[in-house]
Amino acid sequence: MRRIDLIEPFRVMQLLERAKQLEAEGQRIIHMEIGEPDFPTPEPVLEAARNHLATGDNFYTPSTGSPQLQQALADWYADEYDVQIAPERILITPGTSGAFSLIYAVLLDAGESVLLPDPGYPCQRNFVRLAGGEALNIPVGPETRYHLSAAHIADNWQQKTRAAVVINPGNPTGTLIEETELAAIASCCAEKGGYLISDEIYHGLTYGEKPPCALQGNHGDNREHTIVVNGFSKRWAMTGWRIGWVILPEDLIGAARRVMQNIFIAAPTISQFSAISALSSQREVEGMRIAYDTRRRYLLAALPKLGFDIVVEPQGAFYIYANVQKLSDDSRAFCWDMLEKVGVAITPGEDFGIHHAAEHVRFSYATSLDCLKEGMRRLEMPCKQVLMKNNTA
Amino acid sequence: MRRIDLIEPFRVMQLLERAKQLEAEGQRIIHMEIGEPDFPTPEPVLEAARNHLATGDNFYTPSTGSPQLQQALADWYADEYDVQIAPERILITPGTSGAFSLIYAVLLDAGESVLLPDPGYPCQRNFVRLAGGEALNIPVGPETRYHLSAAHIADNWQQKTRAAVVINPGNPTGTLIEETELAAIASCCAEKGGYLISDEIYHGLTYGEKPPCALQGNHGDNREHTIVVNGFSKRWAMTGWRIGWVILPEDLIGAARRVMQNIFIAAPTISQFSAISALSSQREVEGMRIAYDTRRRYLLAALPKLGFDIVVEPQGAFYIYANVQKLSDDSRAFCWDMLEKVGVAITPGEDFGIHHAAEHVRFSYATSLDCLKEGMRRLEMPCKQVLMKNNTA
Repeated sequence: MRRIDLIEPFRVMQLLERAKQLEAEGQRIIHMEIGEPDFPTPEPVLEAARNHLATGDNFYTPSTGSPQLQQALADWYADEYDVQIAPERILITPGTSGAFSLIYAVLLDAGESVLLPDPGYPCQRNFVRLAGGEALNIPVGPETRYHLSAAHIADNWQQKTRAAVVINPGNPTGTLIEETELAAIASCCAEKGGYLISDEIYHGLTYGEKPPCALQGNHGDNREHTIVVNGFSKRWAMTGWRIGWVILPEDLIGAARRVMQNIFIAAPTISQFSAISALSSQREVEGMRIAYDTRRRYLLAALPKLGFDIVVEPQGAFYIYANVQKLSDDSRAFCWDMLEKVGVAITPGEDFGIHHAAEHVRFSYATSLDCLKEGMRRLEMPCKQVLMKNNTA
Repeated sequence: MRRIDLIEPFRVMQLLERAKQLEAEGQRIIHMEIGEPDFPTPEPVLEAARNHLATGDNFYTPSTGSPQLQQALADWYADEYDVQIAPERILITPGTSGAFSLIYAVLLDAGESVLLPDPGYPCQRNFVRLAGGEALNIPVGPETRYHLSAAHIADNWQQKTRAAVVINPGNPTGTLIEETELAAIASCCAEKGGYLISDEIYHGLTYGEKPPCALQGNHGDNREHTIVVNGFSKRWAMTGWRIGWVILPEDLIGAARRVMQNIFIAAPTISQFSAISALSSQREVEGMRIAYDTRRRYLLAALPKLGFDIVVEPQGAFYIYANVQKLSDDSRAFCWDMLEKVGVAITPGEDFGIHHAAEHVRFSYATSLDCLKEGMRRLEMPCKQVLMKNNTA
């Protein structure tokens, strides 16, 4: 099989295409499948963009990013996490997608592997495969809050394994990893001579406990074996701006710079300069966080009444991973059914892996409370019909 | 050797660092090493950016690009080259760098190879290696205007070769490939069951003959085996915006879309919408082209007087590839010498390959005529000294 054939499509895209077709025919579709903030970018960022446009500077920044943005992020890490990070360790990438392409280009040789959670962010597997590596998908469940544990790492690490990925809060589950477990994973990866890759893209979008940066506190002990990824897309509602970053151990920076010079040249200039203003847009971010939390609470109350089981309460991101076994034994068929029958789009579990995939769906609440309410109203009848039928049977 | 160790740095970067150090010490450096337009982005593009910011749309476009930009480019191809290209075949990438990452992810399996010219654009080799492929660097010289020829393709194609790259006008040489040769290469790649990759990033920056698009006219006969890459960075002075595109044969589009969903999600949104206005900024582009040509003519007259031999007159881009054998037998040492002695930065041949690299340097005229004149004035004394010494010896 050729490498390109290992790269999986997002299966939900077919469902989205059908949704668009239905919309073109005049139907209103409720979108709970999309993992993209529905909020506009904070005004201070837009203002910074207008100001930067006026300077006439549309040239490349250094490959590793604008030194001003690197410094602003270093200051932000000191404020936000009380951790000192040298600005030159913070490499600016075109989104976190760019960060992952970069990381695997630097870390992997053909046939080397990375430990990933299943269910998990679907692109991770594909990043690893595109770099010629092997994705080792480890089944995870409610017992570890859908995260890899230190025991998983110890049990599954192979001779050619180079790293393990934790995304905290998680996608598709929105769950936080236990702080002690994150530290234990970092130690375990360090002992193996590999790396913990901590994807912190949903940091800031949490609704209670605040997750630590993997370089903070005790975690810092393993900083030579820890890679942190983050970006502006989610917390700051800046998806289309394409700015992420990666914090690398010092000994990987030279290699990373070589790769960045070649595969990116640099991240988009206006976006980089505008992003600096995001870091002081605390008020706007807090407004979005509160709105997400209201939606989250609404769905957490509404979904179980319709037969969706939420095994572990999500504490972050804008996702709810729900078990649909009471409603269907085939989550893909269920999602298609809900789209066709009542115009509600939900992502089937198969987009996140194979472990119990047919039993789960992911709801995204990156859409207005009114839309969510309309979605629940529409799901009520078909769900209740199934529940009644199963109760009678 | 690990893959990452095969990725070469730009050697000129060390020279640039030293130049910055000298500038920090108060020296004025004349930069003729940088391949980035010195012009600001055309005003209609800036206006479009301001207008797009006002819409509040900062969301992802489809992975393959904004349909409006795809359509605008299809219209542009009809106008510019009289060639009909379906908009959905034009995939929008984060710069042409993104286009090449994408192409090699789609085309190559581990150990497969790509034919490249030496001297040539240094990133090409690294893109191929990062994709796990092998770069076959074919020595080229004045006899083929520094381009691959159909004979090169026929002689060097191996069982595992998948493509050959032509960049027209070339970097570092600025030379155009003969039209009949381009068609012959396309046929040859098609016969081998592989692909011609035509990098047309410097199209529009030519000073006489206009090169054809590789999908135009006769070339269209092999369109199922031809890949065209282009972007907004050079012709439209939009480097920091990071927008390129690739035109793929239909049967590769599905695979490319899967890769794009994963490694980019999408190109930057504001840049995509602004780029549409670039396509009607003909007047601004023509102003830049005329300025480049004036600079080119100035250097073509001035450089030989200093002892630089220009074997093939460059007809495009903003580069002059010159033989320095009359001045030095080590172009790297020569470049360092000129930087230290007279504060002039030039790129040594080694950044473009190994074939006669020590005998050549590349001048970029992406800097003002005044700077170029000052550069020539500074080079005069050290060059004349060497020439006189050699004549006496």
